[in-house]
Amino acid sequence: MQIKTTLRFHLTPVRMAIIKNTTIGVGEDVGAKTSEKEQETIEHIDEVQNEIDRLNEQASEEILKVEQKYNKLRQPFFQKRSELIAKIPNFWVTTFVNHPQVSALLGEEDEEALHYLTRVEVTEFEDIKSGYRIDFYFDENPYFENKVLSKEFHLNESGDPSSKSTEIKWKSGKDLTKRSSQTQNKASRKRQREEPESFFTWFTDHSDAGADELGEVIKDDIWPNPLQYYLEKKMMMMMKKKKDWKIDEEGDEDEDDDEGEEGEDEGEDGEDD
Amino acid sequence: MQIKTTLRFHLTPVRMAIIKNTTIGVGEDVGAKTSEKEQETIEHIDEVQNEIDRLNEQASEEILKVEQKYNKLRQPFFQKRSELIAKIPNFWVTTFVNHPQVSALLGEEDEEALHYLTRVEVTEFEDIKSGYRIDFYFDENPYFENKVLSKEFHLNESGDPSSKSTEIKWKSGKDLTKRSSQTQNKASRKRQREEPESFFTWFTDHSDAGADELGEVIKDDIWPNPLQYYLEKKMMMMMKKKKDWKIDEEGDEDEDDDEGEEGEDEGEDGEDD
Repeated sequence: MQIKTTLRFHLTPVRMAIIKNTTIGVGEDVGAKTSEKEQETIEHIDEVQNEIDRLNEQASEEILKVEQKYNKLRQPFFQKRSELIAKIPNFWVTTFVNHPQVSALLGEEDEEALHYLTRVEVTEFEDIKSGYRIDFYFDENPYFENKVLSKEFHLNESGDPSSKSTEIKWKSGKDLTKRSSQTQNKASRKRQREEPESFFTWFTDHSDAGADELGEVIKDDIWPNPLQYYLEKKMMMMMKKKKDWKIDEEGDEDEDDDEGEEGEDEGEDGEDD
Repeated sequence: MQIKTTLRFHLTPVRMAIIKNTTIGVGEDVGAKTSEKEQETIEHIDEVQNEIDRLNEQASEEILKVEQKYNKLRQPFFQKRSELIAKIPNFWVTTFVNHPQVSALLGEEDEEALHYLTRVEVTEFEDIKSGYRIDFYFDENPYFENKVLSKEFHLNESGDPSSKSTEIKWKSGKDLTKRSSQTQNKASRKRQREEPESFFTWFTDHSDAGADELGEVIKDDIWPNPLQYYLEKKMMMMMKKKKDWKIDEEGDEDEDDDEGEEGEDEGEDGEDD
């Protein structure tokens, strides 16, 4: 029974030949129960199955074309969006800090460096399945010489993933990937959590190109709508101040009818017994 | 920081109004850092984002149309395949027994009953996302009166899943769903594992319509190519008998160059010290 999980085959010509030779030619000993007529029917099923497989491939190709078409149509809007975003100071660093998964990767000095990040761009390669590239455009900054840092992900023809990135030209004494472990011990503990490895180690880490977490979060979660993450904290702040607006959100806030009370009981505890 | 996971919003008109009123009108207190110009840029980004979202929706619709077109094109081949499969005795019961996940759901009496199963058909509903139905056609049999047992899965407009099925009209004393727990205690233990609940309980279980394991295995794994599962055991038997054919399979058999030696050292231990 355990064999099945390791052996999932399609009826290739070689395999077809085995069945044929065994049941019809060599016969009796093994495939005794497969009659000649049954054998013909199996071959016929296999032919029909091949037609189905062919249609599946055609469907995939057509879907790929639709995706490519819309990638082209979206392009000028992504372009426009990038230009607008570049006008808002700290848009990207704010967006990253507001994103739960990305934020977990940011050390405090990373945040400093990301204040110089002005554009982020995701490009899916023409055939889409073969990969994508993320470009980070930086202003002149005290950390590194590069104007652009890129990381790109490829699938080769046999489907093996790989990634490569720009080599970061750190300014003297500014290599954030090298001091992360030092700062981890002496750094301020404001955040009450361990300082993570530097965000920038991502550019040298090619160990998991097939499922690069940060790459996929940026491509599939942030890039489709970065504005929502940029605004998230701002919205929360506003909503807290404006409780009487009573906007329905998914998160269910306790409302315990506090009419009149101005919630000044912070810090007071157990005065009632 | 934890707020983010519960609050993932798009910039709806209501929310836009909050930002507007807070920063431009009510102002200072909250969004002090958001200048009027920045506010305009954010609104502009949101407009561009809406264009992108619109294109995404159009792309989804076009892809749905491609899928529908190919569903139609595949239909006559599925039909033909079903007719051919019906000519092979025990095709479906063999296929199910050979499938690791389905096989785990089969009691011995289920297998008996499934010998009468002649056709399995999967139909995705026209709009695809809304659900699918699986029909099981049975020959006259000693277990139940029905000629067809169906189970179908729906998503309503708000995306909530539900399922419903044919009520099985068991012949007297033949209800396999009721005796599974009895047979579990006295039944033969040939398989050296606990007898599972009856396969047929699936028709009355609507507890997990959104992720029905058996439904999804049949639709996504078996239906696309049932022949491979039907042939699997047959292939394995043949290959075992024909070891000298040396067909490369994914499973790697130990070959430890056993020339001449006939591996009789089983049971002997530690004769060397």
